[in-house]
Parts: sequence; C-alpha cells; structure tokens
Amino acid sequence: MLEYNAQARLLVSCKDQPGIVANISSALYQVGANITESAQFSTDPTDGMFFMRIAFDHHGLHALTELNRHLRGLQASTKMTYRLTDPNHRLRIAIFVSREDHCLMELLWQQRTNMLPVDIAMIISNHDLYEKTAQEFSIPFHYIPITKDTKIDAENAQHRLLESRVDLIVLARYMQILSRQMIARYPNKIINIHHSFLPAFIGARPYERAYERGVKIIGATAHYVTDELDAGPIIEQDITRVKHSDDVASLKKMGRLIEKNVLARAVKWHAEDRVLVHNNKTIVFT
Amino acid sequence: MLEYNAQARLLVSCKDQPGIVANISSALYQVGANITESAQFSTDPTDGMFFMRIAFDHHGLHALTELNRHLRGLQASTKMTYRLTDPNHRLRIAIFVSREDHCLMELLWQQRTNMLPVDIAMIISNHDLYEKTAQEFSIPFHYIPITKDTKIDAENAQHRLLESRVDLIVLARYMQILSRQMIARYPNKIINIHHSFLPAFIGARPYERAYERGVKIIGATAHYVTDELDAGPIIEQDITRVKHSDDVASLKKMGRLIEKNVLARAVKWHAEDRVLVHNNKTIVFT
Amino acid sequence: MLEYNAQARLLVSCKDQPGIVANISSALYQVGANITESAQFSTDPTDGMFFMRIAFDHHGLHALTELNRHLRGLQASTKMTYRLTDPNHRLRIAIFVSREDHCLMELLWQQRTNMLPVDIAMIISNHDLYEKTAQEFSIPFHYIPITKDTKIDAENAQHRLLESRVDLIVLARYMQILSRQMIARYPNKIINIHHSFLPAFIGARPYERAYERGVKIIGATAHYVTDELDAGPIIEQDITRVKHSDDVASLKKMGRLIEKNVLARAVKWHAEDRVLVHNNKTIVFT
Amino acid sequence: MLEYNAQARLLVSCKDQPGIVANISSALYQVGANITESAQFSTDPTDGMFFMRIAFDHHGLHALTELNRHLRGLQASTKMTYRLTDPNHRLRIAIFVSREDHCLMELLWQQRTNMLPVDIAMIISNHDLYEKTAQEFSIPFHYIPITKDTKIDAENAQHRLLESRVDLIVLARYMQILSRQMIARYPNKIINIHHSFLPAFIGARPYERAYERGVKIIGATAHYVTDELDAGPIIEQDITRVKHSDDVASLKKMGRLIEKNVLARAVKWHAEDRVLVHNNKTIVFT
Repeated sequence: MLEYNAQARLLVSCKDQPGIVANISSALYQVGANITESAQFSTDPTDGMFFMRIAFDHHGLHALTELNRHLRGLQASTKMTYRLTDPNHRLRIAIFVSREDHCLMELLWQQRTNMLPVDIAMIISNHDLYEKTAQEFSIPFHYIPITKDTKIDAENAQHRLLESRVDLIVLARYMQILSRQMIARYPNKIINIHHSFLPAFIGARPYERAYERGVKIIGATAHYVTDELDAGPIIEQDITRVKHSDDVASLKKMGRLIEKNVLARAVKWHAEDRVLVHNNKTIVFT
Repeated sequence: MLEYNAQARLLVSCKDQPGIVANISSALYQVGANITESAQFSTDPTDGMFFMRIAFDHHGLHALTELNRHLRGLQASTKMTYRLTDPNHRLRIAIFVSREDHCLMELLWQQRTNMLPVDIAMIISNHDLYEKTAQEFSIPFHYIPITKDTKIDAENAQHRLLESRVDLIVLARYMQILSRQMIARYPNKIINIHHSFLPAFIGARPYERAYERGVKIIGATAHYVTDELDAGPIIEQDITRVKHSDDVASLKKMGRLIEKNVLARAVKWHAEDRVLVHNNKTIVFT
Repeated sequence: MLEYNAQARLLVSCKDQPGIVANISSALYQVGANITESAQFSTDPTDGMFFMRIAFDHHGLHALTELNRHLRGLQASTKMTYRLTDPNHRLRIAIFVSREDHCLMELLWQQRTNMLPVDIAMIISNHDLYEKTAQEFSIPFHYIPITKDTKIDAENAQHRLLESRVDLIVLARYMQILSRQMIARYPNKIINIHHSFLPAFIGARPYERAYERGVKIIGATAHYVTDELDAGPIIEQDITRVKHSDDVASLKKMGRLIEKNVLARAVKWHAEDRVLVHNNKTIVFT
Repeated sequence: MLEYNAQARLLVSCKDQPGIVANISSALYQVGANITESAQFSTDPTDGMFFMRIAFDHHGLHALTELNRHLRGLQASTKMTYRLTDPNHRLRIAIFVSREDHCLMELLWQQRTNMLPVDIAMIISNHDLYEKTAQEFSIPFHYIPITKDTKIDAENAQHRLLESRVDLIVLARYMQILSRQMIARYPNKIINIHHSFLPAFIGARPYERAYERGVKIIGATAHYVTDELDAGPIIEQDITRVKHSDDVASLKKMGRLIEKNVLARAVKWHAEDRVLVHNNKTIVFT
C-alpha cells in the first residue's frame, strides 16, 4: 500500500450536472489521493444543487498543489465552488458566555479531551464570572460588559479581539442579541444554542413558555445566527421527555444537559467541515 | 391473603389540603380494598390543586357502594370531586378517519390484540375508503361526506350516531376542523393527533413547513380538542430524527410511524383513566 | 436538463485501492448516468475493504448494457464484485409467522401503503391463525405445521414453495429454529427479529430474563440468520425504556411496538439494497 | 395555608397488607405534615412486597419526633422497615476515578451548579492525574496507588478515609475491581458505571466487543456493586445509536457522553432517596 503523509478535505457545491463526481474523483486519482470518506447530496428535483464532501489522504504539499490546479480547471468549466481544508489546521473558536456555564464547561472539557477538534482562542463574557475557569484551562478571558448604550462599542471591542484570530464564534448561552452589523461580519460563522426545539418558542423564556403550554418534550437547537432572531439555518436539535410534575426549574436543569450536548455536536461538525448551508438550511454530512 | 373479586379506580381532584390522602386511604381501608397502584400530584405552589389516581382490588358491589358512601362524605367536607370507574367497563370509542389509514390500522390492531383496553363502537369517515377494513374487524362503518355547506348537518348526523354510544372520539387523521358546537358536546372527550411537535407548526401542512424550515427532528402530538386550533391540552408527544436528504414525502412516511404510536398511547392512557386535565394542561399518571 | 427514463443501483465491494471511485464514476459518466445518491465506506485500516452504493438515473436498457460492459472491464482489473439492480423490480418476500401477528400486520400495512418497496409473495405459518388476514391482503397463505419429527419434511415443503419465487425470507416472530440445511439455502437472505437488544438475552424467553435482571431498557434486533443462534449480522436495533412497575406482560406489549418497527426498517433497507455484509457485520447505507 | 418550616422524606418497605397506606398517611396527618410527593409500588403477585416513598413538609423537630413515635408503633404491628431522612442533610459522596475524567468532571460540575444534591467529600484515585482538578473545586484529593500486591492495604487506606465521612462511593470509571471484603463494607452504597448496556458485554473491553459484534446501539449502565462482577442491581441505563463507520475510538468518545449522564442520574436519584433495592433489582421512584 502507498504511503500517505497528510490528510485533507474537499468541499464542493455547484449546479447538479453529469460528470461532476467523475471529474472530481479523477482529479483526486491523478494526484494519487486516497478517498477515506465521501458523501454527496443533490437537492434535485427542488433546485438542482449538488454538494459533496470528501476526506482523503495525500502525498504532501506537491500533490495538493497539483490537485488545486485540477480543481481550478474544473471550477472554470463547471462553475463549481470548492474549498480545500487541512484537518491539522484546527479551527480557532471564541466562546461567548453570560451567566450560565454549562455549555462553556462542556466545550472546555470536550476540547481538552480531544473530543472537539478545535483550538479555543478566547472566552468573551459580559459578566466577570468565569475568569478563574478560563485560567484553569489556560485560555484568555475578556470581560466586556454591555449595556443598551454601549452595545456597538462593546461589539467593536469584541471584533478587534476576534479579527483574524478566530474562525468561529460560539454563543454558549450568551444572553445578548447581536447587532445586524456584528452578524454581517461573520456570515455562517456564529453558532448559537437556543433552548427550545425551534421553531417552537422563538425568543425569550422558552422554558417558561414550554411549561405553560404543557408540552411533553423540551429541546434545544444549535443554529447559525442570521438577522432574523432564532431563524437561522438549524445545525442540530435534540429533545428530552418531561412530565407534568416538572416545574420550570426542573425543565431548565434538564434542558441544560440537552443544550450543552447539542451545541458541542454542532461545533464539532462545523469544525470537521461537515456542515454546508444552502437556502437557510444545512446539509450535515455525518 | 384476602380474596378479591373485582377491580376499580378512583380519581380525585380538589384544593390541596392536609389529610386528604389519609382520608381517602382510610375510606379504602375501611371497605377492605387493596391498593394496587397509586399516584398523586400537587400543583402547589402554583395554584394549590391536588390530583390522585388509585387502582384497587375490592370485594364486590357491596364494598364499592360502601366506599362511595364514604367518598360522598369526604366530598362534602373537602369539596373534592371524584370518580369511581370499573376497568371491566371498557371505554367505547369512535374513530374518525379521512384518507390516511395508518392511525386507524394501529388502533384496530392494538385493540384486537388487547393492547388497547377499549371497545371500538364505530368508524366514521368523510370518505368511503375503509368500509372493507371496518368489516374485516367487524366494526360498524358510517360514511358521512362533508362539504363546507353540509358541515353542520354532517356533524349532527355524527352526533346522532355517537350519542350515548361512545365515550371518546378519536380523530385518527380526520382532516376536518370540528365546529365549536361539536367540540362543546364532547369536552375533553375528543383526542386529535397533530402531525408536528406542537406548538411548532400549528395548522395545516406541518411536514411541508418542517421541511422548509430545515428542522432536524419531526414529531407528533396527541391532544384534547378545544375551540382553539391545535391548542388543547397535550397528552403525549414523540419525535424522530430526520436528515437533509429527507424530502417532504419521506418526512410524511417517517411521521406516520410516530403519529400512530403517539395516538395509540394517548388513547390507552385516557382509557385507563390516567389523564386528568387542569388549566389546559394534562396530568398523566403513567 | 437531460431526460432520464429509468433508475438503477450499483453495489460494489473490493479491496480498497486508488482510483476505484474515479473508475466507477467515469463509467457512469460515459453512459450518461446521473448519480442521485452515493455512499461509500472503507474498513481500512482494519482490513482494507471498500464498499459503495450508488443510485442513478439512466437512459434505458442500452445505456445499462454499456455500463455493464464497462463494469466487467473494471471487475477484471480491480477484482471488484458488483451488482446492478433495478428498483422497479421489487424484492419478493415470504413472511414466516407463528402465533403473534404484530410484525406480520406491520409488514402487510407498510407494504400496502407503499412504505415498504417489496412484493409479498406468500405467508407461511406453522399455525393456521392468519389465513383470513392473508386473504384480506390477497396474499397466498401456506399452513405448514411442524413437529420435531417433521421438521426436515416441512422445511423441504417450504423450500419448494419459495424456490425461485422469493428473494428474501422474513421471520416475523416465527418461533422455530431453522435447520442448518435450510439456512444454507438462503445465505444473508433470511432476516429474523429477535426480541432483545442482542447480544443481551440470546435464545429463548428474553423478556422474562430482562424482567428478572431488572434492566431499565428493552430492545429488539433484526439480523440475518446464520448457523449460530442469534449471532448473525445485525441490521438494526432499537430500544424502549421500562420501569420497575412493568411486569413481563407489559414488557412483551411494549416490546412488540419496537420489534415490528425494527423489522420493517431492516426489510426496507434490505429491499433498497442498503445493506452489505462483511465479516459477520453489516454496512448499512442509510 | 399552614406554614411549614422543614422537609423530610419517608421510605417504607414491608409485606403488602391492607391498610398500610391508610396507617402511614394517617400518621403523617396527625402530626400536621403535608405530603408533596408520593409514590408506591407493590410486587404482588410476585412476592407481595410493598414499597413507598413520601416527601412531605412538616412543622419542625417536634412534629418529626412525634411522627417517628407513630411510625415505631406501626413498625411493631406491620413488621415494616422505614427510614426518615432530611433533604437538607446532603449525602456525602466519595468519587473514585482512574485515568478517564469525563464522569468525574460531570459530577463536579453538576454538584457545583446545584444539579446534584450531594456534598463531594473527597476524590480518591489510583493515579495522580486529577489533583489539580480537585483543587480547583476545593475538594480533598487522595492518591492511593494500587498494585496486585498492595490491593488489600490500599483498600484499607481508602476505608480509613471513607469511614464515617462518606455515605456513598461513586466509581466514576475507576478501573479496579473491588475486593469482596471492600464491597461488604458498603452494601448498596457503591455505584459503578459500566460502559455497556448490561447484561451485554459484562467485564472488560465492552466497546471493543460491541464493535466486533457489530451492534447498532451502545450504552451504559449505572448499578450498585455486588460480589458478582457487573451483576448488581441496575439503577439506570441509556444508549446511543452507532453506525458501521464508527470505529472503537469513536464508540468510546460517544460512550463517554452516555456514561457521564447515566452515572449522574443514578447518583442524583440515590441522593434523593428515590432508589430502593429488592431481590437484586431496583425500584426507582422518579
């Protein structure tokens, strides 16, 4: 068997067309790459889009450069867009947190035990509660308080910290609504955890409203943040059963366990280039 | 051990007050009843209501009459409401169905194999598709077509069939909205299956809307029918995971399997006197 | 967009090797096929096997013949094995059943409503309970009683009915252990539903043993039948939660709902060519 | 409404007999207690045992002493055993851990955020990996290495630390088998997390064996430790779905998330006096 010394991932999207898989797999073959994982999806007959994710082993920088040349050729002839990524360049994330630490703690622990293939570049909070926690995990902590009046300034301060240092912002129960301007800086690069199974209970106080409605399941939703509140592309959801005897406090406690796991899965999938966005929906290649 | 020759159930609701459990259990003890199952719930501190369900073995009609006398005494002193039921008097249900038969078939099969402790008194449909199915299960079938103009007449015809013959109406994917008048005739006695995890996707075409929103879970909700569309007390819900590759047709197929099981559970619990309604929510003693 | 008038599926397995995906997708491209669904899996580094399932649209018999010629060429050079199937040639199944009808009923209903893409060629039973049911669904019913002494004769009689008329045998709670000889006639073509989450509770009376052990979940397992009892390749499993108050009878009732759904999923996936077997395990491309 | 200033729980087990509920609830009524939560279970017809858990509000020490006097009277006449506990006296636990920290971290975090109503008295480990973690949570850490030869000495050292300081030992992925002698010191007071859905994969390397068998679900089981390996009363189990593409490493990662949640639930229920043991099975009043 051939020796490979590096891994890479290729993400492709384009209008669905005959030969696209043949062309891409031939390009990989010509540079001696070995496909280890592959998934594709066509939206046809809805709107005829094609999406593909390929993980492969290759022989090093020279092969990759050569592959890139082939792909640029394909790009010209097929109008496809593509992205080559290196799994060893780990995604750099910033965690935004307010008062509740369950999502923060899960991300920190999963990162430390290599369950989450990311580097945590910083923790940003509008409260000063978790500086010590950040220190224990050797992660820079930035306390940036926010009031209605200081919001834009605070976001600008955040942006100066994040710019060119961070690939993804994770709102780990960050209880501030980002401005339109801030969201525009990070398209499909902000993941939020909402504490309901969206689209049920959009907005504030979802557990209180779930309790009032008397639902028998509660849930959590990880989604990319867009201008419209809680309406961005959903990456992952999960639920847990509840009973008439559960009050709001117990819903919140049970919900935390769902929230932190859903958020961690979404961040992991994003970091592994498994999530593509199209028409405000996600394609998740798991 | 004492010999018992009959079973019964006692359902109690009242303002929460000291001694209520002691009084009820003493009444049961005095007539020699043996409690086999018991559950209680207090809403306190919300609004201080107390609910109880007791299943017990007893020595026959004389004991039960005596118990009833004790309970009437308690009723006077505690303002409690109560209901004594006999599990051997099986609940009589009518199944309403339109074009899709998955819920109908599940109820028929579960009833025939003693998984559902009810008698199916009749099937009513606004289509003539399932007469043969009804025959095979030896159940009277009534075809009552409905148009916008004939709705009230049709409901009156339904009501004449149902009156005093049926304890519960089960809307097994019956695609007609009942009139306010019809609903008023059967308070907390009509169970509907809605094909979404309410309160998400209230109203028509929930699978289409779930697909458009790109949710990662779909669900079904069994609830009592009230005036407000899809807003009655929820009895049971369940969900299944879906993927980006599932189109509306496959959501509908997967959803059927959830719908029929959720509806069957709700009917079973209702038939076993496990469901109490308070403030548009259910207490389900399972 | 090109017009396609037929669908097909291609299943490939071989030693993992560079270029295999490129070669296969090129062959498809050359005959103008359009890939609609594709999945692959490599066992490397365990034992370096490659598996692929491709669903595609094509231009008719001529294109398919041409594709087959390409694939035969590949077969010679790569030692791959492949199979081309036509989704419109529906799999013909025989359902074997004993006393309990829940799996039978689910398969019949799912087939009738187009949820299960198979033709049910016959029902075979060692009891005469479900002849009427078979009639209602217009399916031939064969009553073949079995005793210890008549087992080989009975299996021969079954085989004469099945031979060349049936592609898959579904043991839908058929409470007889097939002989080694019978199993050898249908390698990876007999699906059984076992009423536990294997490998827990192999053999008889799994619910009784689950009750005695005090487990908090029960389950069901659909697997291909091999010589070793309940040890064949697992296709699908599912579970449900149980409580201390559930006795053996209620475990059995709850279990039925799991069994029938797990079995129906396994049959569906088999019928859609989604299941490959390797080293007594399954690859399931869902 | 009456003012209550304290809470308590009453756990009762005895042979099932008429009047037992009436007697107990009368005793509570006589001292002015208010039942807030109540659950009971009878094993009849199996072996006629009765179990009850009552949570109640009371008027303070005097009322509780009076109640205790009543209960002692009942104990004499009914042969019941009972236990009165005070929820404000939090259970003191010791966490035993080896190399993997996921269960430890979950317990520490849940305890700190009041999701787990216990005090963590100490962490004991046969490795020196988590001293810093223990410090961060201000919990005493004891490093007690164990070899085959030093096992009895090490367990004696553990016992000296635990004795009269700890109510429950939690084996949070502690990879040592306790001696018969050590287990005898803490009957039904040692909770272990086993990384399979018992009784599947008893003993070592469950994920490796699950992978080899090709199961489609993996799980975890929290149970009390008894002499027989992995055969003690099961408190809680849960599972997660896996695919053919998951290797042993990914099973282990997915399993961790199940293990830590199952263990935390079991410890919580034990701490809330919700778990009773009878005939090597648990009654869990949730």
